[in-house]
Amino acid sequence: MPVGTLANIKTVTPAQLKMTGAEMVLANTYHLHLQPGEDIVAEAGGLHRFMAWDGPILTDSGGFQVFSLSQIRTITETGVTFQSPRDGRMIQLTPETSIQIQNRLGADVIMAFDECLPYPSAYEVTAAATHRTHRWLQRCVEANQRPDQALFGIVQGGIYLDLRQQAAAALSEFNLPGYAIGGVSVGEPPDLIAKIVQVTTPLLPADKPRYLMGVGTYREMAQAIAAGIDLFDCVIPTRLARHGSALVAGERWNLKNARFRRDHAALDDACPCYTCRYFSRAYLCHLIHAQELLAFTLLSIHNITELVRFTQRIRESILANTFVADFAAWLRSEPTAQ
Amino acid sequence: MPVGTLANIKTVTPAQLKMTGAEMVLANTYHLHLQPGEDIVAEAGGLHRFMAWDGPILTDSGGFQVFSLSQIRTITETGVTFQSPRDGRMIQLTPETSIQIQNRLGADVIMAFDECLPYPSAYEVTAAATHRTHRWLQRCVEANQRPDQALFGIVQGGIYLDLRQQAAAALSEFNLPGYAIGGVSVGEPPDLIAKIVQVTTPLLPADKPRYLMGVGTYREMAQAIAAGIDLFDCVIPTRLARHGSALVAGERWNLKNARFRRDHAALDDACPCYTCRYFSRAYLCHLIHAQELLAFTLLSIHNITELVRFTQRIRESILANTFVADFAAWLRSEPTAQ
Repeated sequence: MPVGTLANIKTVTPAQLKMTGAEMVLANTYHLHLQPGEDIVAEAGGLHRFMAWDGPILTDSGGFQVFSLSQIRTITETGVTFQSPRDGRMIQLTPETSIQIQNRLGADVIMAFDECLPYPSAYEVTAAATHRTHRWLQRCVEANQRPDQALFGIVQGGIYLDLRQQAAAALSEFNLPGYAIGGVSVGEPPDLIAKIVQVTTPLLPADKPRYLMGVGTYREMAQAIAAGIDLFDCVIPTRLARHGSALVAGERWNLKNARFRRDHAALDDACPCYTCRYFSRAYLCHLIHAQELLAFTLLSIHNITELVRFTQRIRESILANTFVADFAAWLRSEPTAQ
Repeated sequence: MPVGTLANIKTVTPAQLKMTGAEMVLANTYHLHLQPGEDIVAEAGGLHRFMAWDGPILTDSGGFQVFSLSQIRTITETGVTFQSPRDGRMIQLTPETSIQIQNRLGADVIMAFDECLPYPSAYEVTAAATHRTHRWLQRCVEANQRPDQALFGIVQGGIYLDLRQQAAAALSEFNLPGYAIGGVSVGEPPDLIAKIVQVTTPLLPADKPRYLMGVGTYREMAQAIAAGIDLFDCVIPTRLARHGSALVAGERWNLKNARFRRDHAALDDACPCYTCRYFSRAYLCHLIHAQELLAFTLLSIHNITELVRFTQRIRESILANTFVADFAAWLRSEPTAQ
């Protein structure tokens, strides 16, 4: 899922996004609550109409953002109170209000409100947050007024594999339409992320979508898919684009680099995207040097297409029973690789 | 012609531009000489290939930019020497080098190198610059190595109608494939622009394209077309978009305005463009408040479509012999209107 924090994939229109092969997008409850507010989105007929995306949409719960973006926050059993970075007013998000906002936003998949912790956090603190997340999940299930929206639970447990295992077992009891692994990619060593995913994923129902939040790179995705993960979201393709970088042949290329100034080859001649069909590395290098915003659009289109194609190739390999052989390099590669 | 200064229409892909109905675009010799340089564009196979625009392209000569953008410049009969705002080096543009650069860029239409003056300029100064522009035109004609590129001359003469008339007569002698009126819209009162266009245009060959440079608004275009003008270029549609404004029903709307926050109507329900088909005023207002660059793309698509449609309606009225009646409001309107 490309990330559409504020009800748009940055610099990419829905028509362009459709052509990348992306099917589902993510939007952020926290950000949309602050701007424009869920009332305006609901008045518009929901997120799909508002942002003109007719494919599936998932909204996260705001749990991760109140912990990662808010300066001032108070956590109680009720929920989290934080100061709006927009106008300074205090806002409370609880399991009930998060679900209420998500019900109004109207995505296809909504996420339970969870307590996220920074890395590293002590075992006892992590255990308490994980157990609270389960109590909050119960309140989310009870608060959900829209059976047409699929409510996914989130496995927490930090870096402690026994807590992750307990959480996966506890969540599975809820018989939810889907499950997510959260609280990863917050600063842990990549090997630890891989270990958490390997241990946790098999404990979640295999007949339900399993979603690894905030991941990933080629390697992280290949390894997570090997563990059973079905769904990802990540800002990497669009954020890299805004930094002038392209994902080509498994590498990150900074198109601002002088070596591309006279390189008139297609960005990636193996890629069928709009950018690679029509534009050269030299042209993209020029746009970046000229500070032209069109570079962000063209690089985003390519980067999203590239990661979607990567997962498509994995899907085909799985169906052909050749996944491990075909993706051995990614599965075995060092964590520092992409 | 939408303006693609640096070989791109800001925030709009060629595929999106095609859908606006725009057929021809303008690019700037001055800017492209500085970045990426005409050698790189030529290596790429010319501007069309480089920027992936398969429609006609016009390059201006750099004459206007060296006068309007350069801080330090020296004008002699040979040409203009100015300091690059990019790296401080001194650059000389002459009729010969301007044409040489344009030959390398490879547009369909190239412009003669002219001496532009600020408004106001004294009669004698203007007369001297106008006569020099004619001598420079002769040198441009002789320097042009590519008969497949149509070289247009530029009528100067400032606000002095007799100089404009002399210039139009002098240029017509050259039997060029097209003619432009330059040095307008540099600060003169709108009524004076209209007067210059009314007096000058009929003196240029009616069987050749006549191009009014740097114009325009609805009113300026309607009045210029009434005088015989065929071609315009203007940054208004894309620049307004980057300021959050849309051209709707002949007005400029600032979509950031709070009155649009809950306005769920299409931007302009009379417009068939992508933006108006899929997105509401409330959504555009949201994108602007959220500082999302996608707003620039969506507003540019609409604004270009709107001005192209305006000229298309004028063309239809001319063919139906109803132009004056259909556009009387614009032809008669006050200069302060758009």
